[in-house]
This record gives sequence, structure tokens and C-alpha cells, in this order.
Amino acid sequence: MFNDRDFLLENESAKILFNRFAANQPIIDYHCHLSPKEIAEDKHFTNIGEIWLSGDHYKWRAMRECGIDEKYITGDASDYEKFKAFCSCMPSLIGNPLYHWAHLELRDSFGCNYIICEKNCDAIWNYTSEYIREKGMSARSLISKFDVRAICTTDDPADSLEYHEMIANEGVGFKVCPTFRPDNLFTLNAKEYPAYIERLGDRAGVKIEDLKTLYAALGRVLDDFDRLGCVTSDHGFNTALYFEKPNEFYANEIFTKAISGHRDLSEHEITLFTCQMMRFLASEYKKRDWVMQWHIGALRNPNKKMLASIGKDSGYDSISGKNYITEIAALLNYLEEADILPRTIMYSLNPNDNAALPSYPVHSVRGAKKLHTLRRE
Amino acid sequence: MFNDRDFLLENESAKILFNRFAANQPIIDYHCHLSPKEIAEDKHFTNIGEIWLSGDHYKWRAMRECGIDEKYITGDASDYEKFKAFCSCMPSLIGNPLYHWAHLELRDSFGCNYIICEKNCDAIWNYTSEYIREKGMSARSLISKFDVRAICTTDDPADSLEYHEMIANEGVGFKVCPTFRPDNLFTLNAKEYPAYIERLGDRAGVKIEDLKTLYAALGRVLDDFDRLGCVTSDHGFNTALYFEKPNEFYANEIFTKAISGHRDLSEHEITLFTCQMMRFLASEYKKRDWVMQWHIGALRNPNKKMLASIGKDSGYDSISGKNYITEIAALLNYLEEADILPRTIMYSLNPNDNAALPSYPVHSVRGAKKLHTLRRE
Amino acid sequence: MFNDRDFLLENESAKILFNRFAANQPIIDYHCHLSPKEIAEDKHFTNIGEIWLSGDHYKWRAMRECGIDEKYITGDASDYEKFKAFCSCMPSLIGNPLYHWAHLELRDSFGCNYIICEKNCDAIWNYTSEYIREKGMSARSLISKFDVRAICTTDDPADSLEYHEMIANEGVGFKVCPTFRPDNLFTLNAKEYPAYIERLGDRAGVKIEDLKTLYAALGRVLDDFDRLGCVTSDHGFNTALYFEKPNEFYANEIFTKAISGHRDLSEHEITLFTCQMMRFLASEYKKRDWVMQWHIGALRNPNKKMLASIGKDSGYDSISGKNYITEIAALLNYLEEADILPRTIMYSLNPNDNAALPSYPVHSVRGAKKLHTLRRE
Repeated sequence: MFNDRDFLLENESAKILFNRFAANQPIIDYHCHLSPKEIAEDKHFTNIGEIWLSGDHYKWRAMRECGIDEKYITGDASDYEKFKAFCSCMPSLIGNPLYHWAHLELRDSFGCNYIICEKNCDAIWNYTSEYIREKGMSARSLISKFDVRAICTTDDPADSLEYHEMIANEGVGFKVCPTFRPDNLFTLNAKEYPAYIERLGDRAGVKIEDLKTLYAALGRVLDDFDRLGCVTSDHGFNTALYFEKPNEFYANEIFTKAISGHRDLSEHEITLFTCQMMRFLASEYKKRDWVMQWHIGALRNPNKKMLASIGKDSGYDSISGKNYITEIAALLNYLEEADILPRTIMYSLNPNDNAALPSYPVHSVRGAKKLHTLRRE
Repeated sequence: MFNDRDFLLENESAKILFNRFAANQPIIDYHCHLSPKEIAEDKHFTNIGEIWLSGDHYKWRAMRECGIDEKYITGDASDYEKFKAFCSCMPSLIGNPLYHWAHLELRDSFGCNYIICEKNCDAIWNYTSEYIREKGMSARSLISKFDVRAICTTDDPADSLEYHEMIANEGVGFKVCPTFRPDNLFTLNAKEYPAYIERLGDRAGVKIEDLKTLYAALGRVLDDFDRLGCVTSDHGFNTALYFEKPNEFYANEIFTKAISGHRDLSEHEITLFTCQMMRFLASEYKKRDWVMQWHIGALRNPNKKMLASIGKDSGYDSISGKNYITEIAALLNYLEEADILPRTIMYSLNPNDNAALPSYPVHSVRGAKKLHTLRRE
Repeated sequence: MFNDRDFLLENESAKILFNRFAANQPIIDYHCHLSPKEIAEDKHFTNIGEIWLSGDHYKWRAMRECGIDEKYITGDASDYEKFKAFCSCMPSLIGNPLYHWAHLELRDSFGCNYIICEKNCDAIWNYTSEYIREKGMSARSLISKFDVRAICTTDDPADSLEYHEMIANEGVGFKVCPTFRPDNLFTLNAKEYPAYIERLGDRAGVKIEDLKTLYAALGRVLDDFDRLGCVTSDHGFNTALYFEKPNEFYANEIFTKAISGHRDLSEHEITLFTCQMMRFLASEYKKRDWVMQWHIGALRNPNKKMLASIGKDSGYDSISGKNYITEIAALLNYLEEADILPRTIMYSLNPNDNAALPSYPVHSVRGAKKLHTLRRE
């Protein structure tokens, strides 16, 4: 039956496997986007609109497809108005995973079994508001409720990690590790690039003037991440991923151009710099026995108007449709021949790639080992 | 059971949804290739071979795959011989949608439940010939039988629309609207291009000598389509769809070369002209509140021998296998930033693209609005 | 039930179709990689480890993904140790076709219904060893057991075909035909290319010095294959398949460079030579009424370290992810316009291509005709 305990479990084996074995497993979440600040401060929530709609761009996207005005999505409407607009869309989303997902969230987080629709909006709002108040629902209480034992957040190398420090000092009943996500390092033509590199240097206590000092700064940052429990890096390649043989001399020239404000570096230059940096970083990850994660296949920010008005990660990204298997294979082979390929996990945003990706296996398969240690501790 | 009322409806909900709600809906066919001439003249049919096999290249293709000689497909065999050849192929097509489709056509158009095979050929032929005679089966009677309330045909800008005019003046019991399909505008290197542009100018009453006069001619044609009820345009991109920033000066140069008979324009020139024209046309569509349709992913006429002998749209087209998401996103973004992007519907001929296409949503979603007005009138 | 006679047959029609009709058909295997030497010598086996793991790189690959050391895969461990390592992996492979496949092999070849896992390793090993001994299991007895009536092996043009000769002279109770697989002809930049061409010349009794003498040598080899029953060729394109209009003059220049040891031919040169050779070979196949097979979409040997240590075809190949439909269509059209396109079968290693490949049909469909004659004889 819709949304009961056996929902989507289509035969006896599935029910046994899920209910007897899977359901009671603790959660080791080695890849998420929870905010370390909200965990450190144990943010308390006041209503379901805030919890569901203040940051979930999957829900935003669905609302846009249903014709909802941006005011009720990322605009200045109240939490209640936004939640009501979301409820009004739900009946159009039958068949979309979001429909099932939202109902599961409602059931499992709030013990509420209403069908989500405009008619039930007030009943759900009132019930959940009461529930949130009564239970004192907060960032940490939600995490504990689902028996989450470890969380790997997503952190920029220029981040201070102060909240991770606070969490580590205080102890919160579950493990919270930073994840090293250096995407900004690769955006050589971005207006903000020189300022970003300066901020990274300040954070590391190193004046970054060239590739050598960049390496020195990153080395210190990597140590700091490692000290706070980091076991994974995460790369979301914003540009196409091609392969150019790394070359330190040219990479240094390209980098110094970028930090002096050039914003017209060619695709070839960006690719060469990217491959050189991956050479450096892969080697550093391997030294520390970290797992390297690669996200490929995204086309980021294709809608420049909405990028300018509400910023990135707001539900406008697309699958890129490019296929980089040959290029990825060349880069992986380069790293493997240089003996610096860490354990690696790859994700493609394009479901069409998933048939092909597993076919370069050797290095990825033992990737879970260090992650498993998260659980034992 | 095969081909009964509940065929393919695999559970109770499906049966209820289809039989109680969907089955009785009228048809608003906003995209088809019916002939306005046949509707205007209310063409009467004489046999099932003529109806099924005189233009349906899906059936032709299946017959070729079964090894049938071209004589019995597009050649000079009689309607009966062609129908018999088609019947002989059907048992090999079990599992192909054509198998179900043909049986549904036979059941729903003729009330005939025979299994289609060589043995039943004569029985089906005789039964349907009698049925056609008795019912006086014609273009209009078939359309009315299925409760079609509106039809959007496919029309070239150089078409006179005389049959649409006749239909509008006469009244046929359902709405027939032209669709603006300007594919020929983009075939700059075609031998027939200069003559085509001349014909377009004659139709519009404008001598086309450059981009400016082309715009003037198209403006008049667009108005004429609009007056006859057109609400959609339709683009089947024959070449790869790349993005080049529109530039009126160069586009004009390229166009004047093409109409003076140059047939060696580069892919880059064709792309630039295409993007410039899309800029002009998108803006005109938006002004008139039309919906813009894009067909992408086809490889047209790969078999030049058959193209020479039986012409285009004869069952030889292929999926191209190229993926243009990044390029499409760039063109859509250009139009959106210029504030001239009309409501848009995209279709890819490659099923692999369908996972990715919905991910550039914002502009396409309210595309059905004006089409809906077809129904209310 | 798992692995019983009706396993995977989900309804009554499937059971009837398989058990009553399909199961008793003899096997005409027009594409396999069995060794003509092992058939000629009727190789006798001693244990299941040797049969299953001495050459099956699908099993090797799965073992690597389970973290097994290469010693137990292609290294110097004993057959028993390798088989035990394989058994230990099987429980992790539930859901992988290999899991079903291995159990079916065990059931159908050995009449053994154990679940394959480390605990059952010794029982399976002992049972199958006894079975192999008792039945005198050999290359030919296995082939006859499954009622295989014809086998097309895979043979290089430089092969002597001596084992095919022996089999033909001796008579083995089933037909064994060579398949002409000239992939090495196209590897112009390979270190071994000049020596390979010399070996080909020796085999044909022709001194190969240019394109003309290459054609002469190939003509003789093709006749020899034909005489020994060859009805198909097989091309596994190792490089990307692009289209360049064949040109005998340039192709000759490129070829003479390659046989004099140049190893820096450009992609363009290799493509032109490839298309010229396909022109020659297609025409020769058509003359002999052979079927031409094309394998596309592989990325061969991406892991250079493992290539150097254990060689090719060892489980490291990948899907390439490139899509060549447009290029393939151009080459097919060239051959068709020149009236030299033989009956053709294409396979893509990328499942994503399978939706698109059938769309260039016309020439492929009667491909089975001559293969069928294998069965009648």
C-alpha cells in the first residue's frame, strides 16, 4: 500500500531483506551537504516549511515545473506560503520520485501519514509545527533519530573548519568529518579567483605566489582536514574533463596568469592546469589514504539570468550529455602509471554513463575500506 | 488478453484510469502530419492497402527488415499486393510496437479483430473493403470518428495555405491549424535553396535579396499563419545544432552567398546563420505567443541511393547519436537573456537523451497554455 | 526457483516457448572464441579451475572487483587455489549476470546444483573432478553434449589454419569454420606491424611491399579461408571509427610508411587507410557472399600497467563511450553507393547505442542467409 512499511518492497525476499536486515542498520553518510554550522549550533527548527524548503533545490525545481512563481520558491514569501505552494504541486508529481520521497520524509520524520496536497496543507502544517515544538526538533536530534553514526560534510579548502573544531571538542554523539572539495581551485577564469586564492593563502598562513607556494598552502590545509577526521576528497568538475599530460612549468605559468587577474585562459590551459593539480592532489590523497570522489557529467549554471538573480546550486543545473570515458581512462592511467592513484569512487550525473563507468575497475573497488573505519570507531 | 479493451493495462488502477477517464477524452492533436489537402477535399479511401501503406514509412521500414522487395513497399505493385506483403511480415514483428499498433488500428478503425498474417490477408482485405465502402470512409469521417477536435498540420513557410483557407471557410466540424515548419530555410547548401527563397518571396509578395527582405517576407508569412490559427512552430534541425553568437552582419553575408548559389558554406557559417535566424524567429514566435517545438537528434537521409530513388521521409532516417545538450543550453540561454524565448517544447529522437532533456526546464513548462485554448473554442 | 528448469521464465508462455521449442534447438554458433587447436587435439580437462579460470576474463574481472590478489587470477597459484578464490567471491556477485551464468554452467555441464561459495568449494571441486574423469570431459565432448552443430572460430589472416585443416580432414561430428578477423591489419603504429605484415606475406606466399601486393596476399588468404568453410569476417575496431573517403594513392603511401617502421602516423592517416582497406575487404567479402561483422564502441587496454604485465584481453577493456553512428552511416553509404556492401551485422559494446543502431537497416537484414546454410549441411 502507498507509503506503508512495505511500500516498494514487491516480494517476500525484499520484505525480509529490508525489514529484517537493512532497516536496522545505522547510517554512515560519507557524502552529504549538511551544514557543520547548524550541527555545531544545534539549530532548532520552527516549522516544516523552513526544514523542507529553505535549501532543497530538488523541491524548488519541481515547483518551477508546476508554474509556481519564484516568490514562493526562493523569494520573500513566508515559510507557510512556500509550504502551501509546495503542497499544491504535489498531486502533479505522482510518478516522480519526489512524490514518494516527500511522503516518506513526512512519515519517518514526523510520524504523519497525510497525503500531501493543498487541501491537507493546514492539517500537516499544524500537526508538524506541534510535533517540532514538542520534540524540540533540531539538527542534532534529527541526525540521532535516524541512527546516523558518521557524517562527511562538504568543505572548501579555504574554510576555517571552525565548526568542525567545535563539534570535535564538544562531542555530539556521532562522528562529523570534513570532506575536502577544492572545486574553486579549478575556476581559473572566475572573477573571484585571485581573491579566492588569497583567502586560501590566509587560511593556510602561506603567501601564494606561484604553483610552489600553492602546493605548500594546500599541504597545510590537507593536514588540517586530516587532523579533523577527513577521509575523502570530492571533485565536481565544472568544466569538461579532458586529459593533457601534466607539465609543472606550464601549469605554473597558467596559474600565475590566473592569480594576476587574467580571465581569458583557454580550455587547453585550464585542462593542463587541472591535470597538473590532479597529479598533485591525487598523490597527496594517496599519502593520507583518503578516498578520492569524482562527480562528472554536470552542466552547471546554464541559465545565467537565474544564476545572477538567485545564485548557484538553486535547481538549474543540467546533465551535460558529454561522455568523458576515454579522457577519464587516460587520466586514471596516468595516475596509476605514476603510482599515485588513490582509492577512487566515480559518479556520473548522466544515467546513460552508468553502464560504462564500472568498466575501469581496478582502483575503485577497495575504496570503502577507510570509510568503514568510520563505523568501527 | 491480446488486443482486448484492457490490453496493456496491467492493474486495476490502470484500467480505471484509462477506461473511466482517458478513453473518453477528445483528441487535441497539436503535432501531426495529416494532409490539409486530403482534409479539404475530404479524400475517400477504397481499400486498407491505400490507407495503411501509401505513406506510413514505419510500416515500410519493417517490411524492408523482413526482406520484402521494394516493389511491394514503394514500388508499382498494387495496393492488394502491398497489403499482402505487409501481412506476411507481421508474425516476425511480435514484440515490435508496430505489431500492437497495427492490430489496434485494425480493431479501432474497422472493428476487425483478425490476427494479421498472410493466411488472414484476404479475409481482412474483403472485410475492410466492404467496411470502407459501407461507411464511406474518408479523411474527415476518420478524424471525426476518433473525436479529434483540433489538428495542427505541418506547413512550409512557402506554402500558400490555400487548403487551410478552404477548410476555415467551409467548416469541417473540427479545428485545423497550420504549423510553421521552416526547415528549408536552414538548408543553405542545397541545390534548390535559391529557388526555394524565390518561391518564399513570391508567396509573401516581397523580393528577397538580403537578410532584411527575408525578415520582411517571413513577417508577412508569420502573420498569415497566425490569421489561420497557427499556434506552434516546429523545427527539425537537419544539421548538428551548435551555438554561435548571432551576428546580423555576417549572417547577411552568408545568406546572400547562399541565395546567389554558393553551395560550399562551412559548418561554422551554417551554424552562425542558424543561430541568427533562431534569434529572429524566436522573437517573432514570442510576440505572437506561439509555442516553439524543436526536434533534435535525427540523422537524415544517410542512404543516398534510396534518397535518389524514392526521396526523403521514406523510412531511412536514423538517430544521429550526437548529444547537443550543452549547445542547446547555450542557445536557450542566449534567447532567455535577450528576453525573446517563447514557450518551448523539445523532442529528442534519441531515447538516451530523454533522461537529460528535462533538466533545462524553466521555459518549457507552461508551453501547453495556448494549445489548450484550441480545445475551448 | 533459483536455477531450476524454469528459472527466469516468468510466465506460462515463456515456459512453453523455451521448454517446448527453444530448448531442443541445436546450436549454430557463428561467433565464438573457441580454440581450433583444442578442438583438433580434443584437449582433455582435469579440473573445473582449468576449465573456468584459465581464460575467462569476465570471471577475472569480477574477482578483481572483489579484491582478490592477481596471483589467484592470472598468477602462479594452482587451479584449486584460483577456483577457491573465485568461489569466495560469488556471494558478492548476486545480481550480476555472472552469478546466474556460473550456476547454470555448473548445472548444465556437470549436473551439479551446489550454490557456489567458499564453504561449498571443496564439495564442488571433488564432485566435478570425479565427473570430468568419469566422462572423459574434453573439448569435443563438451561441444557435442550441447548439440552444437557448427562453430565459427576467430582467426587472424596470418594464421596458417592448420588446425582447421586437421579438423576438416578428420571429421569431428560438427562443423568448424574459420572467421576472418583482420584487426592487426589496422594497427599501423604498433611496434609489431612490419613483422606482422611480413608474417602475413609468408603465409600467403607473396612479398608484401605496397598496397597492391597486400591486396594480392589478402586475396590468397581469403580464398584459403573460403575453402575451409569461412562465411564471416569480424572487425573489432580498436581505434575510433571515422570516415575519410578512400584514396588508393594516399593509402599506399601510408601503408608503405607503416611497414618501413614509422610509428607516428596521424589519426587522419590511420582513418584514411582504414576506410581504404574496408573498401577492398567489403568488396572481397561481397564477392564470396560472406557476412561482415563489426564490433564498435570498445576502449581497449586503458590500463597500460596491466597491459604490460599480463597482456591484452585480460579483463581491462572498457566501453569507449564514443558514439559513431554518423561516421558509420557515412562509411556504409560509401560502400552501398559503390555496390560493394556485403550483408552486415553490427554490435556495439555500449548498450546505449542499441536503440540507435537498428536504424540503418537495409543491408543487414538478410545477413543470416548463408549462416543458415551451416545448419542444413
